[in-house]
Amino acid sequence: MIANITLNWPSVIEFGVGKVKTLATHLKDNKRIYFLADPPIMSTIKPLIDELKGHGKEILVSNEVVPEPPFEALEKLLSGVSNFAPDCVVGVGGGSAMDLAKLVAVLFSREQKITEVIGIDQVKRRNVKLITVSTTSGTGSEVTPIAVLTDVANKLKKGVVSKYLVPDVAIVDPALTLSLPPAVTAATGMDAMTHCIETYTNKFSHPIIDNLVIEGVRLLAANLERAVTHGDDLNARTACALGSLYGGLALGPVNTAAVHALAYPLGGEFKISHGVSNSVLLPFVMSFNLPSCVEKYKNIGNALGINCDCADEKIARKAIMKIKELSNACKIPAGLKELGIPENAIPHMAESAMKVTRLLNNNPREVTLKDATAIFQMAYNGVIDL
Amino acid sequence: MIANITLNWPSVIEFGVGKVKTLATHLKDNKRIYFLADPPIMSTIKPLIDELKGHGKEILVSNEVVPEPPFEALEKLLSGVSNFAPDCVVGVGGGSAMDLAKLVAVLFSREQKITEVIGIDQVKRRNVKLITVSTTSGTGSEVTPIAVLTDVANKLKKGVVSKYLVPDVAIVDPALTLSLPPAVTAATGMDAMTHCIETYTNKFSHPIIDNLVIEGVRLLAANLERAVTHGDDLNARTACALGSLYGGLALGPVNTAAVHALAYPLGGEFKISHGVSNSVLLPFVMSFNLPSCVEKYKNIGNALGINCDCADEKIARKAIMKIKELSNACKIPAGLKELGIPENAIPHMAESAMKVTRLLNNNPREVTLKDATAIFQMAYNGVIDL
Repeated sequence: MIANITLNWPSVIEFGVGKVKTLATHLKDNKRIYFLADPPIMSTIKPLIDELKGHGKEILVSNEVVPEPPFEALEKLLSGVSNFAPDCVVGVGGGSAMDLAKLVAVLFSREQKITEVIGIDQVKRRNVKLITVSTTSGTGSEVTPIAVLTDVANKLKKGVVSKYLVPDVAIVDPALTLSLPPAVTAATGMDAMTHCIETYTNKFSHPIIDNLVIEGVRLLAANLERAVTHGDDLNARTACALGSLYGGLALGPVNTAAVHALAYPLGGEFKISHGVSNSVLLPFVMSFNLPSCVEKYKNIGNALGINCDCADEKIARKAIMKIKELSNACKIPAGLKELGIPENAIPHMAESAMKVTRLLNNNPREVTLKDATAIFQMAYNGVIDL
Repeated sequence: MIANITLNWPSVIEFGVGKVKTLATHLKDNKRIYFLADPPIMSTIKPLIDELKGHGKEILVSNEVVPEPPFEALEKLLSGVSNFAPDCVVGVGGGSAMDLAKLVAVLFSREQKITEVIGIDQVKRRNVKLITVSTTSGTGSEVTPIAVLTDVANKLKKGVVSKYLVPDVAIVDPALTLSLPPAVTAATGMDAMTHCIETYTNKFSHPIIDNLVIEGVRLLAANLERAVTHGDDLNARTACALGSLYGGLALGPVNTAAVHALAYPLGGEFKISHGVSNSVLLPFVMSFNLPSCVEKYKNIGNALGINCDCADEKIARKAIMKIKELSNACKIPAGLKELGIPENAIPHMAESAMKVTRLLNNNPREVTLKDATAIFQMAYNGVIDL
């Protein structure tokens, strides 16, 4: 029987070119608005902010977005915003900007401390409106109940998962991604691909989500390389934005698995960006998961454009190779070595990854410490062996 | 390029067997709750209502749900609830119960009259929480921005479309549909099928919605007859509930077309239920639309289980026949004659239908008065001629 599921999505999702302009409408009833915006997007949203000020609204803007944000970065933002007491928080940017904005929205009242909300369902409430505008394709954070912080002292990424982090309004305007540099387009695009694949092959996958993410795989496979090499191609950008949105919609109801769990130490210890970490690990974790995922990888293979009259397992293997090829074509570093991670860090990284049980529990194949070590070892040289 | 779209869905959708029990959680913060419930569901929700009362909540329950509700029925409900001043309105039932609950939620404050909210975006605001629990599969009303009333004086159905009618929480629990009689299962199931087909072939169709509704067609085609003939089959009921939910999610962003427009006079003038009206007309409108929909009907045909190595147009025709066969297998009346509608009512019904421009504008093929008359004429005898 079709399993139970709770879909907790923004009540409004604005998708499409030029949709950033709907922001004014969604802020109509707000009087004190806090913007947290990635610096490169400021020139795009400045006219809107000026217009809002012209309508007598109080606006506070911060551009202090730190990649893979540590607790301290959030603490600093909270100090700046608590006295302002906004009635709406708007996060404009990539995953870091949106994650920080989501956390500011639930924490600025100082009712709870950062450390008190780490984990699942620890946030008590949110009293203000929350809007996200994504400028990458992408983390999917614009529609998820998740925000991730870096615990620098413990060299770990820590997740906050709560329905109160789901924004009221999410705006996905592909035109905002036109100026993204190729490396960011590649890493965020492969991150979105990882979301689609890890939710589709998830132990808790669900047909409602499968419909979306398999289409996400298709869109990203067909358009990501083009978006990387021809950043001004709005068709390719729009297709990638939709693929990314599909991946994002899957993260709340199903969430990711071993790729993300293993990627955490790369970010936590070596400050490798979330997108790059996932992209590098994806084909190696897929290879590890193959025995548990033949039929699903076959479907992914079809969505990747593989049409051969051969056994399911062969299509499944081709699917993994295709992901690796796409990653190479997008100039994602091949492996951990190329990322500058020392080989002797592997045992420690494997131990760290094993702590991310929240995500490892979702993986279609059980991952032991030995398995995690072996996957990192395979990913070290970056050569896939199928 | 992929077109723009606004998705305005409930921020929480609870799908699955037993999910009605989540209602208590969603009412946690409410103190004065108004229930509008279809009489047959009362025995199911009474324990929950008693529990809520036990927790000190004020509860007002009405069972005055009228099928194809006229303005007067809503007016009567509003008189009963205005003094109660609820902080949450819960609609439990089929389309009529949910539509009425949605309208009560926006109108009980008496800031606007019923006649002032007819049409698109006329509702000014909603100040209370709104929850829908659907007991049919279905109208999809649990997730839509739409409520439909009957204007008895003018013998017309009139729609209210507003983002304020989108519930905060929608609960779709297939177990609640187990006791539905075969005729209601059939009519509501074919209504859901109509939603999927009319949004898929819509002039304003969108890939986000296409993904959902084509799967809705597949689920309903594979499970509806079983749900009609074996009402206690929870697998079939769950599949139909999901198909219906997909259709519902499509109605806000894309909405229906000529089937629904032509169905309005059947309800408005002859009190034929919404589901039966749509079911009877669906194959005949599909036949009229065929020249504009060959490729889409081919895809629908595939989703209906038609796999033949023949030309697209042939599969498209087979798809229409398959819908007619499914309708017959579910014992939906064959045509207008069988519904007791006199043949001489056709010209007047066609004129009425032409007024529903809101939906006719979505149709893939332009419908003139002459076309509408011809479609009704074909549907009169109930024999499809392809």
